[in-house]
Amino acid sequence: MEKRRVRLKDLTLPQELGTLSIPECEQLCREIRKIIINTVMKNGGHLSSNLGTVELTLAVHRVFHSPADKIVWDVGHQSYTHKLLTGRLKDFSTLRKKDGISGFCRPEESEHDAFISGHSSTAISAAFGIAEAMRLNGDRHHAVAVIGDGAFTGGLAYEGLNNAGKSGDNIVVILNHNDMSISKNVGAFAKYLTSIRRNSAYLDAKKHTEQFLDNVPIVGEPITKFIKASKSALKSVLYHSTMFEDMGFVYVGPVDGHNIAELEDALRAAKKLRRPVFVHVNTVKGKGFPPAEANPGEFHAISAEGYNAESFNNASFSNVFGKKLAELGRKDENICAVTAAMKYATGLQHFAAEHGERFFDVGIAESHAVTFSAGLAKQGKIPVFAVYSSFLQRAYDQLIHDAATEGEHIVLGIDRAGFVGEDGETHQGIFDVPMLITIPNTVIYSPSTYAELEKCLERAIYHTDGIAAVRYPKGTEEMTIGAEDTDSYFLTGSGGKGLAVSYGRIVHSLYSAAGDHDVLKLVKIFPIDEEVIEICMKYKDIYFFEESSGSGGAGEMLMTKLFENGYKGNFTIKAVNGFVRQMSVDESMKEYGLDVCGMSRTLGTERSGTVET
Amino acid sequence: MEKRRVRLKDLTLPQELGTLSIPECEQLCREIRKIIINTVMKNGGHLSSNLGTVELTLAVHRVFHSPADKIVWDVGHQSYTHKLLTGRLKDFSTLRKKDGISGFCRPEESEHDAFISGHSSTAISAAFGIAEAMRLNGDRHHAVAVIGDGAFTGGLAYEGLNNAGKSGDNIVVILNHNDMSISKNVGAFAKYLTSIRRNSAYLDAKKHTEQFLDNVPIVGEPITKFIKASKSALKSVLYHSTMFEDMGFVYVGPVDGHNIAELEDALRAAKKLRRPVFVHVNTVKGKGFPPAEANPGEFHAISAEGYNAESFNNASFSNVFGKKLAELGRKDENICAVTAAMKYATGLQHFAAEHGERFFDVGIAESHAVTFSAGLAKQGKIPVFAVYSSFLQRAYDQLIHDAATEGEHIVLGIDRAGFVGEDGETHQGIFDVPMLITIPNTVIYSPSTYAELEKCLERAIYHTDGIAAVRYPKGTEEMTIGAEDTDSYFLTGSGGKGLAVSYGRIVHSLYSAAGDHDVLKLVKIFPIDEEVIEICMKYKDIYFFEESSGSGGAGEMLMTKLFENGYKGNFTIKAVNGFVRQMSVDESMKEYGLDVCGMSRTLGTERSGTVET
Repeated sequence: MEKRRVRLKDLTLPQELGTLSIPECEQLCREIRKIIINTVMKNGGHLSSNLGTVELTLAVHRVFHSPADKIVWDVGHQSYTHKLLTGRLKDFSTLRKKDGISGFCRPEESEHDAFISGHSSTAISAAFGIAEAMRLNGDRHHAVAVIGDGAFTGGLAYEGLNNAGKSGDNIVVILNHNDMSISKNVGAFAKYLTSIRRNSAYLDAKKHTEQFLDNVPIVGEPITKFIKASKSALKSVLYHSTMFEDMGFVYVGPVDGHNIAELEDALRAAKKLRRPVFVHVNTVKGKGFPPAEANPGEFHAISAEGYNAESFNNASFSNVFGKKLAELGRKDENICAVTAAMKYATGLQHFAAEHGERFFDVGIAESHAVTFSAGLAKQGKIPVFAVYSSFLQRAYDQLIHDAATEGEHIVLGIDRAGFVGEDGETHQGIFDVPMLITIPNTVIYSPSTYAELEKCLERAIYHTDGIAAVRYPKGTEEMTIGAEDTDSYFLTGSGGKGLAVSYGRIVHSLYSAAGDHDVLKLVKIFPIDEEVIEICMKYKDIYFFEESSGSGGAGEMLMTKLFENGYKGNFTIKAVNGFVRQMSVDESMKEYGLDVCGMSRTLGTERSGTVET
Repeated sequence: MEKRRVRLKDLTLPQELGTLSIPECEQLCREIRKIIINTVMKNGGHLSSNLGTVELTLAVHRVFHSPADKIVWDVGHQSYTHKLLTGRLKDFSTLRKKDGISGFCRPEESEHDAFISGHSSTAISAAFGIAEAMRLNGDRHHAVAVIGDGAFTGGLAYEGLNNAGKSGDNIVVILNHNDMSISKNVGAFAKYLTSIRRNSAYLDAKKHTEQFLDNVPIVGEPITKFIKASKSALKSVLYHSTMFEDMGFVYVGPVDGHNIAELEDALRAAKKLRRPVFVHVNTVKGKGFPPAEANPGEFHAISAEGYNAESFNNASFSNVFGKKLAELGRKDENICAVTAAMKYATGLQHFAAEHGERFFDVGIAESHAVTFSAGLAKQGKIPVFAVYSSFLQRAYDQLIHDAATEGEHIVLGIDRAGFVGEDGETHQGIFDVPMLITIPNTVIYSPSTYAELEKCLERAIYHTDGIAAVRYPKGTEEMTIGAEDTDSYFLTGSGGKGLAVSYGRIVHSLYSAAGDHDVLKLVKIFPIDEEVIEICMKYKDIYFFEESSGSGGAGEMLMTKLFENGYKGNFTIKAVNGFVRQMSVDESMKEYGLDVCGMSRTLGTERSGTVET
């Protein structure tokens, strides 16, 4: 009999998955890995996490039946196989492109994406909501949450677990345990998981002991006497043997995450139980691609420019920030650096290498990072928390309650502020400015250049009270003209036709677009300095450009201040409205009228010679 | 020898606490309970939680030496004894009054208040920050976090635990286990704690077993053979016997929280260990006051008007909301109600009683509540999350990421919006409006009357997409005139001297203060309706009054829209700036110029006859 060659494109998916033999599944996994590697090398994206979950995803889709069963992928950076198995092979080459397949889960993209993903630790809560709704609807299908061990350092995962564990719902939580979050996992929980992992013998022993206790013959002294007395107590000890059982789940595992048969056995058992089950799966991040297996951190996220482009030592705002902080840390023992599992991505490896004692990676736990920082500040330390703009949203109440109320001095290094490009809606850094404007005792700096970033960081640390935020974009410095290296504001010209105001990296384009308008570059954007108000009052027409959400943003705030001061001119704001979809940063600039061409249009300064079309 | 009578006022505190005998300590506890009961009956405040921790606090202050040792009280609603023992007896009668002693911890009030408190689940993170700072400073004192079991349903507690557990710091986490959060505790974790509590025998057995395994004589068959083989595996089982040990803490307990000698033994042992220790203390909420012991939920928080005044059936915005929701739930099976441990306080007991299957108390876990609600919505349910304004801050990212991005329709019942009075800074509902304005796909209603609240709730559920927030104040309806029962806006008069605009309960006062101005009452405050813009454009002078933080608030937003529409008049905003300290709601209104007198002053409508001075 001729061996059948199974190809993704020949299958009706996910339905026909169930008809395949294990060797055919393994064949499919090899094909999937190839597609993922090729696509990520071209389009950028998450490599290691996706390569680690190929077999797991296949097994999930063979045992559960999407979309009737709802599969929720935490973060979503491991969902490429899921996408390939649910009808998105044809479009997969558009991964992370404008109007293409998202690098995360998007329900609007497919009915198989049961819930949006992008931020960490949300899957259990979402799956539990889905499970309760299904219960109320009389729907006996399952809700499945797939979540990495890194995401378990986030409190939301625990809130979800605590809640779901007491229910009688058909909910299966699959722990994808690879010992990494983005960089090396931290905290007691990680240690604990690793200890379980090492001891699969421990779980066998547990079963063995339980049987033994049930069947122990009452012979011999003094051992039997003791055993008889302790039997129930020992059983109680055994019952509490994993934290997940403590939380109300049946614990299944650990299972080899690259053995399809073993995975399916575990998942089928979990499915049959019809109550909350926790399946512990061990996977290898980067599996099947030797360079990624050896260096999963480096291959976590890859940019479209090639898999070495985001190397952690290239010039970038992150690295300039990190190096400057390390330098300041040399002179000042009170400076501490805090990250939520983003040591390399935020450039803090420089500080960590030099000042390890004062470097804190708290895991994916932004809320804790802020309250912890406020605790450090309370004892006279100067904590600098480096965090992506979109993840800082997770610490809004901690900023207000734990830091601002008592005026604790904490510094925020807000990375990936503004458009982030291909990661799309969930990762855009467009809410930090409006968010921080609502918090008393807060100052926001938004430098345009490396030199300004260094200046602002120093000013934030030493010359600002309360919460001092310094925000800067993903990637590299573009400013070639107008690098005035200020930490406050800079005005070019006077008596121009109007005043064009902006902040951050787009000031670079504004200089080109301004024409006969004067340009006011803000670096300190909140609160507004008196001098800035005075400058603005002189102009009849003001245009404010903002690479940020406009609602409650810096433009509206300046406008408000001006009109309170009796301003009678015109004030036009060009900012972002709503969520920004995936596309390149340049495409985003164009889409929102923040490139040279768009700004020229707003300012009425288009000339055919200078404006791209 | 004559028995010494120990009185609080005769002691130098906390230093002299260490000199007392156990009977003298017990005498002191009786005096403290009397003071607490008397003061709370007069001033209002937290009764049950404070009565439950009298002995614990005394023991903490005898074993640890504040302010050198840093004691962090989670929430702070159990800190009255701590205040009495650290020099605040004299001023204790000012508890919760303007310029008086805070009902929570305030570092600016005393060096013994090591960190601010008010919101739940922050203490471990803060104490760990303090502990790490002390380590860096070479300070060998302890950081102590006292935290209730209710607060452990909040993910932040877990983030802190996970982080602190792996450190070598002198940090002691004391679990105040009383089986209640505010109403009855929920979730798997609560079940787990109770199981430990029941089994103190279990822990004795554990110790016993460990000794036994170390000393087991190798005799007899087949038992010894088995034991020999399993010894290390069994030890591993024993090692993982409590979740706190899993997290890296030494577990001590459970301890009787009303036995001072036992408490001190445990705390001294914990202190000596010089590493992260978790002390499990069992307390009785309301201890020593029979009505509170019998009904700790009812006596959790007491208002100054008397201990029955906040009875959960009195007319109030919360109850009107709850009853209306229960009624709507009768006609619509898709409506679900969600609370974060605030069933009674938010009026949801009505819904819970009628529609128990669709009522979800998720514990103190606001982030989870929102993501869970988004999961319900994804399956066609209409979740209504009732939450205090200041606690909703904890779900900012979940509102953006899990709800708004995909436009999930979830309804927020935002209770305690505006001034809350005596609870002070940490509980004021003044940030929800600016916060929600930054979130796309969001609509905000702010009714002034019960009838409007009912209308708005119905409109939010059935005629609003995305996030639909209905916000209403603490307490009762005051509106006697102008109860127009609209869900949008209402204009009184035309051609007035100017236009006075406001929303929520203060419109009541505005009607009295308006004089020759027309009054525009907004009920839907975001986004602004076109008709509202059109009305405003007709007036040369507009005054906006806002019982909310002004920065990024509704007034600034309306102002922005007007000027974008070419408005050339004057726009004055009177809103809250910064944090609002503790005082009565009326005093807050006066302080921020939002009472009749203050608004008249702003409008220039004072007449000696009508204005209070």
